[in-house]
Amino acid sequence: MRIVLDVFGGDNAPLINIDGALKALAEKEGFDIVLVGKEGVIKDLLKDREYDKSRIEIVDAPTVITNDDAPTEAVRHQKDSSIVVSMNYLNNNDDAVAFVSAGSTGAVLTAAVLLLKRIKGVNRPALAPILPTAIGGHVCLIDCGANTEPKAQNLVQFAKMGAAYMSYMYGLANPKVALLSNGTEDKKGNTLTKEAFPLLKEAEDVNFVGNMEARELLSGTYDVVVSDGFTGNAALKSAEGTAITLFGLIKQNIMEGGIRAKIGYLLLKPALKKVKKVMDYSDQGGAVLLGLKKIVVKSHGSSTANTICASIIQAYELSASGIVSGIERSCGN
Amino acid sequence: MRIVLDVFGGDNAPLINIDGALKALAEKEGFDIVLVGKEGVIKDLLKDREYDKSRIEIVDAPTVITNDDAPTEAVRHQKDSSIVVSMNYLNNNDDAVAFVSAGSTGAVLTAAVLLLKRIKGVNRPALAPILPTAIGGHVCLIDCGANTEPKAQNLVQFAKMGAAYMSYMYGLANPKVALLSNGTEDKKGNTLTKEAFPLLKEAEDVNFVGNMEARELLSGTYDVVVSDGFTGNAALKSAEGTAITLFGLIKQNIMEGGIRAKIGYLLLKPALKKVKKVMDYSDQGGAVLLGLKKIVVKSHGSSTANTICASIIQAYELSASGIVSGIERSCGN
Repeated sequence: MRIVLDVFGGDNAPLINIDGALKALAEKEGFDIVLVGKEGVIKDLLKDREYDKSRIEIVDAPTVITNDDAPTEAVRHQKDSSIVVSMNYLNNNDDAVAFVSAGSTGAVLTAAVLLLKRIKGVNRPALAPILPTAIGGHVCLIDCGANTEPKAQNLVQFAKMGAAYMSYMYGLANPKVALLSNGTEDKKGNTLTKEAFPLLKEAEDVNFVGNMEARELLSGTYDVVVSDGFTGNAALKSAEGTAITLFGLIKQNIMEGGIRAKIGYLLLKPALKKVKKVMDYSDQGGAVLLGLKKIVVKSHGSSTANTICASIIQAYELSASGIVSGIERSCGN
Repeated sequence: MRIVLDVFGGDNAPLINIDGALKALAEKEGFDIVLVGKEGVIKDLLKDREYDKSRIEIVDAPTVITNDDAPTEAVRHQKDSSIVVSMNYLNNNDDAVAFVSAGSTGAVLTAAVLLLKRIKGVNRPALAPILPTAIGGHVCLIDCGANTEPKAQNLVQFAKMGAAYMSYMYGLANPKVALLSNGTEDKKGNTLTKEAFPLLKEAEDVNFVGNMEARELLSGTYDVVVSDGFTGNAALKSAEGTAITLFGLIKQNIMEGGIRAKIGYLLLKPALKKVKKVMDYSDQGGAVLLGLKKIVVKSHGSSTANTICASIIQAYELSASGIVSGIERSCGN
């Protein structure tokens, strides 16, 4: 089983990608890593490092698609970029099962959707981050960026893919699926959610529990939250921004609170760190693009070596779990 | 100047509405309050209370529209409900300038939009809460619930109304207006925001600074955030839910952190309370429905007497600021 890594994706590329890859190899057996990017640079960075050479392959890709490039054009024209070369590698090698990148979200999504094969029964792949919940569990928000304007039928597929994710990755027997709306009542929503509601209710293999409000996103009441990618993106980013704002305000008030607050902070530090850890994505891998024959993990642009390591292991475990066949069975109906 | 209060709206009605009204009278001059609801109950609750009787009027409305009623039907058929009676009172009395209710959001919005006169140049009124920012200021999120599927032209009106709000209420000279999207680049967005972008750029009286992500909602970078009501609702509720989750996690980790954490908490309490106060809406009034000839303030269903008091004073100050004429001038172009 091979995991393909975009060595030149992300704000801190290429070093943290190399570090993350070697860390993943040291932590886990069962897979090899294909490092895609400027071969000379990669070889230089690997020099004098200790790792199992039999588990690393290097594939040259001389250019990089950046956040400033228009995704569709870049993917069509930059055939020698690390992202496009990675896609071709995945297509040409059956045992290359997953792709990890901290690069441009637009380019990763566009390249994957254009170049990789879709699972039968899935019309639109969807981006699904996993968020921590207030009760110590996880919730899958699907879609949060791949489809700004999906159709109602697509939302049913998102529901099935999200449920498969929670089953295969976290062993949930019957994940509770809710539809993100502007109220909990059955009749609430916009044209899309009103159309999707009855389809979700009828859908086999979906434990649909109804409409929900974004207020409940992190409450742990639901395992899978289904949304169009535009609204899901707003809910996700708003949650991230609020967490950042709150921690910032707490820090600021501690700094301004004099010696009393500072001593209080020292005593409370372990408790606050635990909270921060729960809300922190950096050790928890990335958002997964579901619906393709290969697993695509999009790591945050500001990923650290730990994030990349977590994303690689996440990609491996998801692939090994058999989720692709699971989605095929569930969406093929 | 008269402010009309729905005495029977909200989870804690009627008592907290009466308490809030008397508190507002004690705190501020310049307006009278019209208490609308079951006359007998209101009179009973006012008995033995001390207040300036010349500033209170009671208008009987024997029924109440609840959260369980379908808004449009209820507004059409329950002509003797506190919400509909209030609307008629506003229409029949020029110096009744504003309405405050903690009742069913759907019913308040529906009744206001159906029964009150719109400002010339405004096609769709919009709901605009004010949120606290990380740098100690405020941001107006418009719309967050009145229009699930507005047109691009409506978003331009939302921008103008939001800018007027920040000017008239907070004295901002040239409020920075951003469009909520799934990325900051000009070309990002869904069909609606892509259509609205050039219109906002061309619009007179709008200091449009471009697309933004929901991550920046509370950052203080923008003064007005323009959105369709469905996405705005998701961003707003997600921020609220995340704040609740975080404070809950902090509390839980303090409880589980033993004596050390508890002492730390006691020392940090003033600092944490300040943060909580910034994020807490209960003393900050309600969300304002803009675009009508009268100001409508929708208070949270779980409002306390303090919230109602703040909402009444907010309604009075907004009306007295001349914002209705301001919007008329800005949107009439």
